[in-house]
Amino acid sequence: MPPGQTGARAILKTVFHVCSIFGITVSGAMLVPALIDFADGSKDWQIFVGTGSLIAAACSLVAVATRGGRPEVFSQKLGFLLVTTVWIFTSAIGALPLYFSSINITYAGAFFEAMSGLTTTGSTVISGLDALPRGLLLWRSLLQWMGGIGIIVMVILILPSLSAGGLSLFHMESSDRSDKVLPRVNQLAAGLITAYLTLTFLCALSYFALGMGVFDAANHAMTTLATGGYSTHDASMGYFDNRGILVASTIFMALAALPFVVYIRAFLPRRFQLWSDPQVVVFLLTCVAMSFAIAVTRRVINDTPFGEALISSSFHLVSVITTTGYAAEDYTLWSNAAIGIFFLAMFLGGCAGSTAGGIKANRLVILFLLVRANFRSLIRPHAVQRIKYGNEEVSVEVIQTVTIFVFLFFGALLVGTVLLMILGIDIITAFSGSLTALSNVGPGFGQIIGPAGNFSSLSDPALWILSTIMLLGRLELVTVLVLLFPSVWAD
Amino acid sequence: MPPGQTGARAILKTVFHVCSIFGITVSGAMLVPALIDFADGSKDWQIFVGTGSLIAAACSLVAVATRGGRPEVFSQKLGFLLVTTVWIFTSAIGALPLYFSSINITYAGAFFEAMSGLTTTGSTVISGLDALPRGLLLWRSLLQWMGGIGIIVMVILILPSLSAGGLSLFHMESSDRSDKVLPRVNQLAAGLITAYLTLTFLCALSYFALGMGVFDAANHAMTTLATGGYSTHDASMGYFDNRGILVASTIFMALAALPFVVYIRAFLPRRFQLWSDPQVVVFLLTCVAMSFAIAVTRRVINDTPFGEALISSSFHLVSVITTTGYAAEDYTLWSNAAIGIFFLAMFLGGCAGSTAGGIKANRLVILFLLVRANFRSLIRPHAVQRIKYGNEEVSVEVIQTVTIFVFLFFGALLVGTVLLMILGIDIITAFSGSLTALSNVGPGFGQIIGPAGNFSSLSDPALWILSTIMLLGRLELVTVLVLLFPSVWAD
Repeated sequence: MPPGQTGARAILKTVFHVCSIFGITVSGAMLVPALIDFADGSKDWQIFVGTGSLIAAACSLVAVATRGGRPEVFSQKLGFLLVTTVWIFTSAIGALPLYFSSINITYAGAFFEAMSGLTTTGSTVISGLDALPRGLLLWRSLLQWMGGIGIIVMVILILPSLSAGGLSLFHMESSDRSDKVLPRVNQLAAGLITAYLTLTFLCALSYFALGMGVFDAANHAMTTLATGGYSTHDASMGYFDNRGILVASTIFMALAALPFVVYIRAFLPRRFQLWSDPQVVVFLLTCVAMSFAIAVTRRVINDTPFGEALISSSFHLVSVITTTGYAAEDYTLWSNAAIGIFFLAMFLGGCAGSTAGGIKANRLVILFLLVRANFRSLIRPHAVQRIKYGNEEVSVEVIQTVTIFVFLFFGALLVGTVLLMILGIDIITAFSGSLTALSNVGPGFGQIIGPAGNFSSLSDPALWILSTIMLLGRLELVTVLVLLFPSVWAD
Repeated sequence: MPPGQTGARAILKTVFHVCSIFGITVSGAMLVPALIDFADGSKDWQIFVGTGSLIAAACSLVAVATRGGRPEVFSQKLGFLLVTTVWIFTSAIGALPLYFSSINITYAGAFFEAMSGLTTTGSTVISGLDALPRGLLLWRSLLQWMGGIGIIVMVILILPSLSAGGLSLFHMESSDRSDKVLPRVNQLAAGLITAYLTLTFLCALSYFALGMGVFDAANHAMTTLATGGYSTHDASMGYFDNRGILVASTIFMALAALPFVVYIRAFLPRRFQLWSDPQVVVFLLTCVAMSFAIAVTRRVINDTPFGEALISSSFHLVSVITTTGYAAEDYTLWSNAAIGIFFLAMFLGGCAGSTAGGIKANRLVILFLLVRANFRSLIRPHAVQRIKYGNEEVSVEVIQTVTIFVFLFFGALLVGTVLLMILGIDIITAFSGSLTALSNVGPGFGQIIGPAGNFSSLSDPALWILSTIMLLGRLELVTVLVLLFPSVWAD
C-alpha cells in the first residue's frame, strides 16, 4: 500500500472522487430538461445548461484530482459514508436548477424538493405546477426516476454487503465475495435497470393510450415507477378525471412496489431463484384487504356506490402503501375510519428491493414470525424455535438488523415529531409530516400538508429537518445514523 | 397425580379458585367506602355492603368448590392465564359499585373506570367529582392503590418467573427456584408492601401539612403512590391552587416511579444489592432535562417567569412521564413545543419495578445499548459486542424480551388507533387515547380527552377497546397477547 493512501485521507479522497462522478452524471441529466425548455422557447434552458456546465467542470476537476486514491480495503465505514454523502451531494446539486429558476424558492426549499425527488418521497414545496416551464417539471420527475433506480441498485447490490438494510436475505454466499462475483453483479444491475426501463415504458404507454398527453404520460410514468408521486399538475392524478388512468396507475404502482428481482428471476443463476418471497403475498393481500375495507367505509359512511368506491379506494390506498403519494381527491375528507386505514398504510410500505419506502413487507413478516416464535418459547421453554422466511432459515444477524431498524424507525419518527413541534408546528402536521418523510410517502394529514395542501408554508428549519428524515428513511436509517456514533470513528 | 387433575380441567379449576380468592379480597375492601358513606349519611353505603356481600358469598362458594385442584405442574401458560383473568375479573367486580351507584353510567363505563383504576391509568368517564359521595371517590382511589401494589408485586415476583415483562434482570438464580425460595419471596413481598404503605403515609402527611383536608390528602396520596392520578376534584390538583402541594406531588410521583426494590435494598440478601440500576439515573436525568426544556419554552413563548414556569413544568412533566396523569391546568394550551415534549414523555414512562407504565427506562437503556452494539459490530464485524446493563451482562433472552415488547407496544398503539378511528373517532383523540391507555398515563390530547376533558363522551365500544389497551399496557402486553395465539393452546 503506497504511503498516504490509508486512513482518513484515503477515505476523504474516495468520497470526493465518487461524489464528483455522480455530480458529472447529474449534470449530464440536466441536458434533458434544457432541451425541452429550448424547444419550448423558455429561457430556463440557460439555467440548466449553465448550472450543468458549472457542476460538470467543477466535478471533473475534483474527479481528476482525486483519481487513483482508492483505498486497498473497502471498509464498511467507507461504504456507509459513500452512500450517505452521494445522496446528500446529489440532492444539493439537483436543487440548484430549482433554486436558480423562476420559482420563488429558498435554497432550503429547493434542497427539500430535490431530496424529496431523489428519495422518491414526492412531498413538494411548489404550488402552481400547471403554469411551470416544462423543463422544471421534467427535472423533478427525472430526479425521482433516477432516485428510484438508484435505490433499487443500492438496496439490492450495495447494502447487503454492508450488512445493513435487512435485505441480507438476498445474500451471496461468502465464496461469491471474490473477484468472480463482479461480472455477476454487473449482470444483475443491468437486469434491474432493464426491468425498470421496460416497466416505465409500458406505464407511459398505458397512460398515453388512456388519454394523457405524451409529456404528462412520460412524467407520470417516471414518478409511478419510482413510487415517487411528483405530478405535473397541482391536482395530481385528479387533473385527468379518468378512471382508466387511476386503474392503470394502481397496477403500475403495485408492480413498482414488488421486489424488482422477480422481474429478472428467469435470467438469474439458479441460487437466486430460491427467492420464493413471502413478502410479495403479504403485500398484495394487504393491498386488497385494505382497499376493500376503505371501499366498505365509503359505501357505509359516504353512501358512495361500491364499484366507484372500490376504484378510488384502491388507487389511493395503493398510492399510500407503495409510498407513491399521488392523490385524485382529498381522501382525508372521506371519514375518520378511512383516515385510520391510510394512517396504518403509511407505516407498512411496499416490498424490500423496490422503490417503495416504509417499514416494508419483508420486515413485517419477520417481525410476525419473531413474535410467534417468542410466544411459543415462552410456553415451551425447551423447544428450539427456528424462524423460516420462505424456504430459508432467518439468521440471527438478519433478525438483529430488522429489530434495530424498527427501533430506529419509531425513534426517528418521535424525535422528528418533537423537533418539528419545538419549531411551533402542530401535532398532526408534525407527526404526519415526520411519518410521511420517513416512509417516503409524500402527503401527510391535516390542513397544511394533507393531500390537498403542500409543504410551502413550512419554515426553512422545518424543511431541513424533513429533508434529513427523508434521507434517513430512504437509506434505511442505519446507513446514516451509524456515522453519527463517535465510537465508529475511533480507530 | 390424581385423575382429572391434569389438562384443561385443572387449569380452569385453578383459574376459578384464584379469581374467587381475589374476589373475596376486593369485596372486603368495599367495606372501607361503605363505612365512610355510612358516617356521611349517604345511602351509597348500602350499595357497597350489598354488592360486597353478594360477591363475597358467590366467591366463597366458588373458592370452596374449586379447593384442592392445584395442578402438579405450575406451567407458564397457567401463569399468564391467571394474571390476565385476575386483572379482568377484579375490574369486572370493582366496577359493580360504580355501576349500581347514583352515577349515570353504563357497565362499559363502570368497567372502564375500574380498569383505569386497577391499571393505575387514571382516565375517567365521570365528571362532577366534587359533588360525588365520598364513598365512591374513596373507592376509585382504593382501586388505584390496590392496583399499584398489585403491579409491583406482580412485576417483581411473578412475571420474572414467567420470563415476561423484561424485568428478568432482577432474577433469582436457578438454585433459588426451589421450595427454599418461598420464605425469601414472602419476605420480599412484605418489604415491598411496607415501602408502599410507608411512602403513601408520608405523602398523605405532606399533602395534609401543606393544606389539604384529611380526606383529600389520603385519596391523593393513594393515587400518587399508584402513579394513577385519580382525583377527588374535576380540576384535579388545580383545585388546591397551592405550589407547595405541586412540589410535594412532583417529589412523591418521582419516588413512586423508581424501582421499589431500592427502598428495601438494605433489608435484602447480598445478591440483590447488585442492582446498581442505570435506569434510575437515566429516568431522573430525563425528568430534569425535559422539565427544564418545557420551562424554557414557557419562558420564551408564553413569557412566564422562569421560577414559576419551572414548578408547573416539573409537576406536569413528572405527572406525565411517571404516567400519573394529574393536571393543575391545561398544559396542552401552553405551546406546540411543550406538547411535543409531553408527547414524547408519554412513551417513555418510569422505571421498571414501580407502579409507572410506558416503555420504561430500563428498556430504553437496553435499546440504546443494543443499537450501539449493533452499530459497532457493523463497523467491526469480528469484534464480539457484549451488552452490559450496570454490572451485569444482558442475556440474549432479556434482549429478546425487550425487543418483542417494543414491537408489541407500537403494534398495539397503531392497531388501537385504527380501531378507534374505525368507530369514527378523530385521529388526535384516537392516537393519544390509544397511547395514554397503553402507557397508563390518563389524559390524552385534543378537545375531548385532553387534560381539561374526560372520556365520558366516548361510545361503549370505544371504552371497551380502551379498557383492553389499558390491560395490555399494564400486563406488559406479552402476558395477555400470548394467550391469543392458537398454537399456545395446542398441546
